Order: sequence, then structure tokens, then C-alpha cells
Amino acid sequence: MNNVLFWLVPICSVIALVFAWFFFKGMMKEEEGTDTMKRIAGHVRKGAMAYLKQQYKIVGVVFLILCILFAWMAFGPGLQNKWVWVAFLSGGFFSGLAGFIGMKTATYASARTANAARRSMNDGLKVAFRSGAVMGLTVVGLALLDISLWWLILDEFVEDVNASHKAIMITTTMLTFGMGASLQALFARVGGGIFTKAADVGADLVGKVEAGIPEDDPRNPATIADNVGDNVGDVAGMGADLYESYCGSILATAALGAGAFAASDLQLNAILAPMLIAAFGVVLSLLGIFMVRTKEGASQIQLLRSLDRGVNTSSVLIIAASFLVVYLLGLSYWICGSIIVGLITGVIIGKITEYYTSHAYKPTQEIAKSGETGPATVIIKGIGTGMISTAMPVLTIVAGIIFSYLFAAEFDITKMSMGLYGVGIAAVGMLSTLGITLATDAYGPIADNAGGNAEMSGLGKEVRQRTDALDALGNTTAATGKGFAIGSAALTGLALLASYIEEIKIGLLRLGETTIEVGGKAIDTATAGFSDFMTFYNVTLMNPAVLSGVFIGSVMAFLFCGLTMNAVGRAAQKMVNEVRRQFREIKGIMTGEAEPDYARCVEISTKGAQHEMLFPSLMAIIVPVITGLIFGVAGVMGLLVGGLGSGFVLAIFMANSGGAWDNAKKFVEEGNLGGKGSETHKATVIGDTVGDPFKDTSGPSLNILIKLMSMVSIVVAGLTCAYSIL
Amino acid sequence: MNNVLFWLVPICSVIALVFAWFFFKGMMKEEEGTDTMKRIAGHVRKGAMAYLKQQYKIVGVVFLILCILFAWMAFGPGLQNKWVWVAFLSGGFFSGLAGFIGMKTATYASARTANAARRSMNDGLKVAFRSGAVMGLTVVGLALLDISLWWLILDEFVEDVNASHKAIMITTTMLTFGMGASLQALFARVGGGIFTKAADVGADLVGKVEAGIPEDDPRNPATIADNVGDNVGDVAGMGADLYESYCGSILATAALGAGAFAASDLQLNAILAPMLIAAFGVVLSLLGIFMVRTKEGASQIQLLRSLDRGVNTSSVLIIAASFLVVYLLGLSYWICGSIIVGLITGVIIGKITEYYTSHAYKPTQEIAKSGETGPATVIIKGIGTGMISTAMPVLTIVAGIIFSYLFAAEFDITKMSMGLYGVGIAAVGMLSTLGITLATDAYGPIADNAGGNAEMSGLGKEVRQRTDALDALGNTTAATGKGFAIGSAALTGLALLASYIEEIKIGLLRLGETTIEVGGKAIDTATAGFSDFMTFYNVTLMNPAVLSGVFIGSVMAFLFCGLTMNAVGRAAQKMVNEVRRQFREIKGIMTGEAEPDYARCVEISTKGAQHEMLFPSLMAIIVPVITGLIFGVAGVMGLLVGGLGSGFVLAIFMANSGGAWDNAKKFVEEGNLGGKGSETHKATVIGDTVGDPFKDTSGPSLNILIKLMSMVSIVVAGLTCAYSIL
Repeated sequence: MNNVLFWLVPICSVIALVFAWFFFKGMMKEEEGTDTMKRIAGHVRKGAMAYLKQQYKIVGVVFLILCILFAWMAFGPGLQNKWVWVAFLSGGFFSGLAGFIGMKTATYASARTANAARRSMNDGLKVAFRSGAVMGLTVVGLALLDISLWWLILDEFVEDVNASHKAIMITTTMLTFGMGASLQALFARVGGGIFTKAADVGADLVGKVEAGIPEDDPRNPATIADNVGDNVGDVAGMGADLYESYCGSILATAALGAGAFAASDLQLNAILAPMLIAAFGVVLSLLGIFMVRTKEGASQIQLLRSLDRGVNTSSVLIIAASFLVVYLLGLSYWICGSIIVGLITGVIIGKITEYYTSHAYKPTQEIAKSGETGPATVIIKGIGTGMISTAMPVLTIVAGIIFSYLFAAEFDITKMSMGLYGVGIAAVGMLSTLGITLATDAYGPIADNAGGNAEMSGLGKEVRQRTDALDALGNTTAATGKGFAIGSAALTGLALLASYIEEIKIGLLRLGETTIEVGGKAIDTATAGFSDFMTFYNVTLMNPAVLSGVFIGSVMAFLFCGLTMNAVGRAAQKMVNEVRRQFREIKGIMTGEAEPDYARCVEISTKGAQHEMLFPSLMAIIVPVITGLIFGVAGVMGLLVGGLGSGFVLAIFMANSGGAWDNAKKFVEEGNLGGKGSETHKATVIGDTVGDPFKDTSGPSLNILIKLMSMVSIVVAGLTCAYSIL
Repeated sequence: MNNVLFWLVPICSVIALVFAWFFFKGMMKEEEGTDTMKRIAGHVRKGAMAYLKQQYKIVGVVFLILCILFAWMAFGPGLQNKWVWVAFLSGGFFSGLAGFIGMKTATYASARTANAARRSMNDGLKVAFRSGAVMGLTVVGLALLDISLWWLILDEFVEDVNASHKAIMITTTMLTFGMGASLQALFARVGGGIFTKAADVGADLVGKVEAGIPEDDPRNPATIADNVGDNVGDVAGMGADLYESYCGSILATAALGAGAFAASDLQLNAILAPMLIAAFGVVLSLLGIFMVRTKEGASQIQLLRSLDRGVNTSSVLIIAASFLVVYLLGLSYWICGSIIVGLITGVIIGKITEYYTSHAYKPTQEIAKSGETGPATVIIKGIGTGMISTAMPVLTIVAGIIFSYLFAAEFDITKMSMGLYGVGIAAVGMLSTLGITLATDAYGPIADNAGGNAEMSGLGKEVRQRTDALDALGNTTAATGKGFAIGSAALTGLALLASYIEEIKIGLLRLGETTIEVGGKAIDTATAGFSDFMTFYNVTLMNPAVLSGVFIGSVMAFLFCGLTMNAVGRAAQKMVNEVRRQFREIKGIMTGEAEPDYARCVEISTKGAQHEMLFPSLMAIIVPVITGLIFGVAGVMGLLVGGLGSGFVLAIFMANSGGAWDNAKKFVEEGNLGGKGSETHKATVIGDTVGDPFKDTSGPSLNILIKLMSMVSIVVAGLTCAYSIL
């Protein structure tokens, strides 16, 4: 059961990994600069490793417990197949590996970027961007490798009544490794987010305010932790996050394809379509990455154009590639319409994000202006603007859903499974060029860290200015990346709803329920459509179980944000205590005679973050299970829709408020409304601090939460079928 | 078509109004105090009238336009019956009247309460509480009067094929006046909320900060506006709000009863049940109000016990009364189970609200403590805690929904219409003792205003202390009131979903579609059940129209909050400019020789509020109409569920964050953590300012928004049936 075109997927994945290795080697050949630069970069690297060690210990234990549970479910009451627990493990492993490699690269690249920026901005861009590309290519390469391997393994070992049903079994089993990836990503985002903000606040409060030493001063014990935080939050967290989004969209669409084309000769081709589009996307991303090169002495506008050219070329060519894929697989050309809709939706959401969070536009400038009447008005205005900013992205996604559905369903709204396949493939289209969009996203934090290294190493002012310019450049391109991440989460979340029903079908068959009763008639479970299951389980909006689920889903999003917000507060407090202790107990820190215990600070922050991340993350696993056991399939569907509806809007609100506060502060720092040191500046600094956990901890974790709850529900669907109360 | 028991409803409504009049006269007999006290009270009264004049002008225009539209829909294409537009008008009128009388009473009572408090705290309590009772009794009296009148009118004039269908026609038409009440309430809450916060911030910023005069100083032109704001926001806004909740729960349940018992002899009795429970509630509330009396020299604890005794007695007796009603009407005793569930749900939510917002408990104390590290941590902690605080109330409501449903459905989950009737009647039970719970709610702002009057009139410190103690007492009892308002909104919102389907049924019949096709079979529209309509319109969670609706509903809640938050900011700015102008242009204000132009300040704030309230309020009407026209019935159902899910959780979050910030500040002001004037105090003041629009503008409006969107959908259901695209 295979199509020769499938082999393009592992081939492209290997190409991506080979080029990632090639770029990594190229970056490593660069000089790391002065001894001080090397020493500081070494501290950050060591700190990042300390974090990873601790993180992996805890995550490992959680994975172990869940693996045992899944193994029991498979080999005990037979509620799952025997591959689930290994697939889960492999998803977690590869997601962690993507984050690990990205972070390793970033920690090697920061000093090298700073050193290259001493020569010229263009050199700095080259090192930073190529390092970002390592991460982009690693994420897509590992994802496609994992997908190819599992496809081959399951194709070899899964046995079933017929090829069509076997394909459904394989694709839904593969969703399990999506769950592993999501769980790993959630831990990475939440843990990293808490870590980075705790270190940030701790370093500022004790260092800047109490001890009166400047930011990024090597005498501050928390400075290294602060820089480590940027790496574990922005780089490792983002890597695991996007690995999860990328896999999730491909796997959900493949599972939908298996279901939608169950009775057709094209079933296998429909499953391969998302994988092949992704594979072509890898090659086109590489092409785009090679296009990013500028002449010596290029202006900032030219640099930006160069980046844009790379991204745009990949995006346009992927449309052509999608026509090729559809042609090769013999599918309907209407599907290309869905892919184009997906790409356009992502771009529009990116533009809207930019409008609401960049200080080139009115909303952020007005937040800065409200600082003239103090911090309270900055907060009110920031929250108000963030809430208003949710309207346009949501309407864009609604249009994206409707059109990608209608295209794939060839404008017949009753063709539900085809339409939802279209929604899934729109998400795949949106993320297909992740190789390059992630490169433009990840190089920002690298440039930022290079700036920190330059500051701590006492390099000239012009070096810091160059890295700042690179960072600013990254922020503009990053808005598009954020649009893609948020937009794809909504579309994938929706596609996963459909996968859930597929898994329920398998669960019923496993329990021996070969027919379901719909409207007084017995229907064959194996061939029943979505509408039949909706009627069978009474998944309508008048069912109190569905409505209870919607309420619980909504509250999950808020509760999760609340817990992570408060976690940042508590972890920061622990950091403050540790920094105070070091200043008190280690003599000679302030005179520079003794080096502070950087690693201890990193460890404190790590332990705090790890401790705090456990409860909210585990909740994401436990709540869908309990909801399923009490409220049944209808309740779980309500939970997922409620979580998607509230979580998606809440995520945009928090990300945009946080981004706008950050840039409102920068707007004032650029000399507007009184500039640095003015009362208005102080007010906007408070806004920025409040925005930190909004945009770096709670907001970005919500996208993962939404999908993780769906995947958990899918994995335990058999349990829900067998034991639910209502 | 009537049951003699019905006459209890108008009789009880008249009893309520007579006693309201009696209490009002009693309050008016009290002395208003010194000349200064009279003068200040006069200014506030004049200001409040200025507000109402402007408010009614604008609201009148909106009502006129909508009336013409409804009249056209009825007499033109025949999409509605000819009573809709008048019913809509009467709901708006009575809701406005309830707010007007409450505010009038409050403005007469403040100086009288202050004067009585000069004698003793007990005297102060008596005047304030009896004035609050005027409002409580007016709201329930007018509501039952309006309901009785419309029932009699429609019974007389509506003609239909048979009694059963006529009952459905009448009850769904009566929902239209619920829409009028909701729209009036939304304007009152949003307008009042913007007004009061704009005046508050304006008075503080220019008076306290720029001119350096104390709070509530009569030289500040915005002081009167500030006091007017308390009346229009807390009193008139709350009155219209609870009139809307009370009517909404009774009308939605009556409409559900008509549908659920359509084929039964008990139909009329099921319709009358919510009205009769409310009627008995009025009498029991009166009983409770008379029980609130203390001996001279009673301690604060004794006062609180006295209030509690009144409320608790009414609540316990209403359980007995509900058994009586059910017995008299020959309904199933299981329905009493739903009523008890409703009462318990309300009480639990009230207790949870108290836990998260009173500074007697840890959450609020920790928010105050986080002020030690500055305002940013106060905001982060307040938002985090507010978000966490949503979990328990939502779980309580979920339990309330499930149990009230199961009781009424006699534990058969497939008896959908019976179950939803139970959910509706739970809301009625919860609000049945509104007469007394609103009295304990409304007397808080009256005591607060009395304090303002005492301060401005230069009365002794002990008078202010007494009014403060009364205010604090009110805050404790008000938590229960808030629990009832929030809880009933969720239950009523759910009941309205069912009413929507009833109205769709009528719409289809009006269009001549006597059969609908469900699963290949033609079913008689008139006798089709909820499940049939769900299948016919494909209202399942896999339909992209439903999901689009859910997204739009979620975003509506956030957008509405964002708009009102920003409106407060802008209106405050206008107030600041006016106060600055008066200080500059009117000579002798600061020396006390010239009186500031209070009315002009009130007018500026009024106009600002009115201008800002229009867009968000009109959005609540337009969005459901457009959603219906594009996405059809499935989309509207999604919209309502999405709005309910997100809006309910967001409302709790905003109310609790705001309340906790307020009390965290009070906790510091009571001498904890450094007390007044400390850095911690300043940080908590910023938290309190941010919390103001949270708890007084955006949060409380959301409950109304949720219901208004449902009622609009119900009223334009015929339009959706006839013209929707998808």
C-alpha cells in the first residue's frame, strides 16, 4: 500500500536536515570573538544546558507515566492499538530534539553574530539568518522524517480487514505522535515562558532597581539567566511549538483524507497530499533561504526587501507546487483553492497583527500617548486595544474556514468530510513554507542575544546598534510568522474535531459495536458519516452535555492563562530572593573580583519554572479525560469547541496586548512623548512588564493547549466510548 | 384561556408597587438635614436628571427606528406578528421606568441617610435599606405588571388555529418585550458605566492631582458628576439590568413551558408556573424586608445577621412556596428539584465571588502583597487571580444546568424540552426573591452617596464612619446578589436558545413551510421536536456555519469589552478638558466665591457616555441579524453558544479582578502592608483604577449582551428563516 511519490517525503526531509547541518557547520566556522565574548557565550550555553537537563528529567517522568497508561490501555482492556504508546514517545522525542538543536545553534550563534556585526551589518545578518535557517530546516526535516518513518512502520505492521480501514487506523494512530509533540511543546512553552519572565523580572528588580547596576551587567547573577531565558523561551519554546503545529496540521489532514476518501480509490492519494505539499514546501523554503543575500553596504530597507523576497518567492511557488501535487495525485483542482485560501488567511492575519502591535501605526502610538496620564490608563488602553484587535483576525479565520471548506466541498456545504479536509489542507498550505518563515522568526532572538553579548563584553556602541537593527528587522517579519502560527492553530483545531469522530468510530468497532442506531434505523458503524455520529451522540447545541462542555472548554482557556500568569509572579519572587542572597553572601561581586554563581540562578529559575509548569500542563491532559468520562462524546465535542472559541480569541488578545505594550515603550524610548526617563516612559515600562507574561508565557501556550486537548481526546476516545456516564 | 390562579400575578405586582410607594413616602418624611446637605443633594438630583434627559433622547431615537423596522417586518413582508413592535416598546419603557424610580429614590435618600446616620447607625440603616427596598419592589412590581398586562392583551387579541399554538404565539411574542428591556438595560449599563468612570477619573486627575483639593470637595466641578455617576451607574444601571434579568428568566421559561407541554393539558399551567413562583417571591420578599430591623445600639454583626435573616427566610420559604405552586398547578414535583438547584447554585456562586474578592481571604490579600514590588505585579496578579476565579463558578453553573435539567426531565436526558424548562425554572427560582436581594444590593450605593454628601457638607467624622460601615455591610450582602445576577444570566441564556428554536418554528409556519425534511422523512413542522430542527438545520458541531458562529460569538464578548474599556478612556479625557476649562475661565471657584458649573460637567460626561455607548450597543443588535442572514439558523445558534461560553467566563473574570483590586486597595488603606500613602498603597490604587471599568462598565454589561443577542435573534427569526444565504 504505497505510492512511489511517497518517497519524496523522506527524501525532502533528509535534504532539509543535510542543509541544516551544512548551515550549522558554516556558522560554527565563524570566529566567536574576544575572550570575554567567548566566556559569556559559554555561561549562557551552560545555563541553557542546565535548564534542558532539568526540563527533560521532569518531562521524561510525565512521558513515562503516560506511556505506561497507554500501554495498559492497549494491552489491558484493548481500548487502543499497541502502537500508540511508542508513537506518543517518538513525537515527544522529536519535538524536544527540534527545540534542543535550535537552542544549541542559537547559543553558539549569538557571540558569532555579535562578532560578525563588528565587521558589518550584512555579515551579522548572514550569520544570524543562517542560524535561524538551521532551526527552520531542523523542525521541518525532523517532522517529515518522523512522519515518514511511522508511515512505513505502521504500513508494515498494522493488519486490518481491508486497505481502506487500515489507512484510517494508521493515520489516526499517527495522531498519537502529534499528541507527544504537543505535550512536549506545551511544557517547552510554559516552562520556557515562566523561566524567561521570572529571570527578566528578577534581574531587573534586584539588579537595576536595588543594586543600581545597568542592564546586562555581568556582575548581576541573574543576567545570564535572563539571556538563557531568551533562548529557552523564544528559541526552544518556539521550535517545539512550531514542530507541533506543523506535524499537527499534516497529521490531522491525513487522517481526514483517510476518512473523507474511505470509499474511493483516491484514499491513499488524499493521505499523501498534505505530506507531499509539505515536502515541496521544504525545497521551496531552501530556495527562498538562498535568495536572502544582500550586497555589501545594503540599507535596512534593502535587507528587509531581501528577506521579504525570500519568503514571498517560496509562498508563490508553493501555489504552483500545490497544483503539481494535485495533478500528480489525481485529486480535484478545487483543493488548490483551499490551499490558496490558507496562505492568504495567514498573510492577512500577519498584517493585522502588525497593524495592532507595531508602533508605526495608531493603536500602539495611542497606548503610548495614554501613558501621559499614568500607568493605569496605559493598562486600560492596552487591554481595550488588545480586545478590539481580536475582531479582524477572527473574521479573517471565519472567512478562511468557510472558503477553504466550500472550495474542497466544491460548493456543496453538505459534503462535510470533504469540506473539513479542505480546512485541514488550508492549514498545511499556510505552514508549508515553515522552513523559511521560521528562519525569519528565529533569527530575531539570535540577534537579540548577540546584542546582549555585545553589551556584556563591552563592545562598541555601533555593534549594539547593528544587532538592534537586525532585531527590529526580525520583528517585522515575525508578525507574519505569528499570523501563520495562530491561524494554523484554529484551522488544525477544527480539523482535529473531525479526526476525533474518526477515532470514536474506531473505538466503537473495537468494542464490537458494528452498528449505531440513527433515527430508528441501524447503520453500519464502519460506513456511517459525520452526520450519523452527530445524531447518534446527540452532539447538538441543545444538549446540556454539549453546553457543559462548551463552558468547561471556555473556562480552561482562562484558567490556564490565570495559572501561568500567577506562576510567573511566584517564580520571579524566588529569583529575587536568590539574587539578593548572592549579593549578600558572595563577597567581591560588585567590585568584579568574584564571579557570581550564574548556574545557581539558572537552576533556581529552572526549578521554579518546572515546578510551576506541571499543574497547568497536566490539567490539559486530565480535563478532557474526565469530561469524556462524565459527559461522553457530546461533552468532549463541546469542550473542544468551547476551548477553541475562547482560547483562540484569548490568545490573540494576549499576544497583541503584550506586543503593543512592548512597542509602545519602544516608541517612547525612540524619543517620542518625552522619551527615556520621562513619566510617560515609566508608565509604558509598567505596561511592558504586564505584557511580558501576556505575550511570552500565557498567550503562545494557548494555541498548543487547544490542540493538545483535542489530541488527548482522540487518544482516549476508546475510553470515552466504553465508560462515559452521560 | 386562563386559570384563576393567574390573577395572583397582577395582585402581587400591585402589592409590591403599593409597598414601594409606602416605603418611598416613609423615606421622604425624613429630614434632609442642613442647608448645605440639601443644596448638594439638589445638585446631584439635578445632574442625574440631566443625564436621564440626554439618555432617553438617544435611546428614544434608537427605539423609534427599531419600532419602525419591526412594524415594517410585521405589516410588510409579514415576518412577524403585529404586536412585536408595541411589546418591544413597553419592555424598554418599563425597564427605563424601573431605573428612573430607583435613581430618583436614591437621590432623595442620600442626604436623608446621612442625616439619619448623624443620630445613629441603626437609623441610617433603616433609611438606606428601605430606600433600597423601594427599588427592589419597583423592579419586581413593574416586571410582573408588564407581564400580566401583556398576557391579558395578547390572550384577548391573538387568534390562532388552536389554544396550544396560540399559547406558543403569545409567549414568544412576549419575549419581544424582554428584548426591549434588555436593550434599555444595555444602554443603561454601558452609558452609566462609562459616565461614572469618566467622571471618577476626571475628578481625580484634575481635582486631586492638578489642583490639589481633596476628594468630594464641592469646589471641584466634576465632584457632582462623580456622585451622579454612582447613581446612574450603580443604581439606575443595576435597576434596568435586574429588571431585564427578572423578566428574561420568567418569559423564557414561559415560552419553554408552552413548547414543552404543547400537546398536554398542562400547557397553560406550565406557562403560569414561573409567573406564580415570581408572584409568591414578591410576597416573601416583603416578609423578608419587614424582618430586617434591629434594636437600638446593635453591633455591625447584628446588623449583618438581621439582613441575612431577611434574605434567608425569603429563600427558604420560596422552596415551600414552589411546592405549593407545583401542587396547585398539578405539575410534577420534580420541578421543585430544579428550583432548589437554582437557589443553591446562586448561593454558591455568591460565596465563591465573596472568597475571591473580599479582603478577608487570601486571594485579595496576595494581590495587595504583590503591590510591594510595584504596580506591574499588582496588575499581573489581579488578572491571574481573576482568570483563575472563573473556574469554580463555571463548574457550579455546569452542575446547576445538569441537575436542573435532569430533575425536570425526571432523569431521562432525551426529554430535551422538559429538561430545558427545568433550566429556565431554576433561573426563575434563583431570581424569585429579587425583591429583597436587590434591596440589600441597592442600599450599598445609597450609603456610599450618603457618605459623599456627609463629606461635602462637612459633617463630623463619625457620620462618615457610620455610612462607611453601612456601605461595607452592603458589599458583603451584594456578593450574593452578584452571584444571582451572573448565574441567572447563564441559565436564562440557555433557556433562550430553546425559545429561539420555538420562534424558528413559528417563522417556518408563517412562511407556509408546514413540513420539514429530516432523515429523508417529511415531518409536520408544528409538532417537530428540538432534535428534528437540529437535524434539519444541521446544527451540529461539525458544521462550519456553527463553528463560524461560535468564533463570532466569542469575539463579540471580547470586542464589546474592548470598546467599552477604550470608551471610558476617551470619555475621561473629555471630562479632564472640561474641568481644566472651568478652573481657568470661572473666577473665584478656588476661593469658594463662585460655584462651578456642575451641570455642564454632568452634561459633558453624559454626552461623552451617550456617544460612546451607541456603537457597542448597536453592534449587539446588528451582529446577530447579519450572522443570521449569512450563516442561517446554524450560524445563529453557534453565535449564541459562543457568546454565552466566552461572555459568561469573561464577565466573571472582569467582575472578580475588578472587585479584588478594589478591596486590595482597601486592605492596604486599613493599615496593612504600610497603609495609606506607602508605595504599596500607590501600586494598589493603580490596580483599583484599572479595575474600575472592569467591574463597573465592561463586566456587568456582558450579562446583558449575552441575553440581548439571543432576544434579537428570536425577534428576527422570521427574517433568518426567509433570507439566509448558507
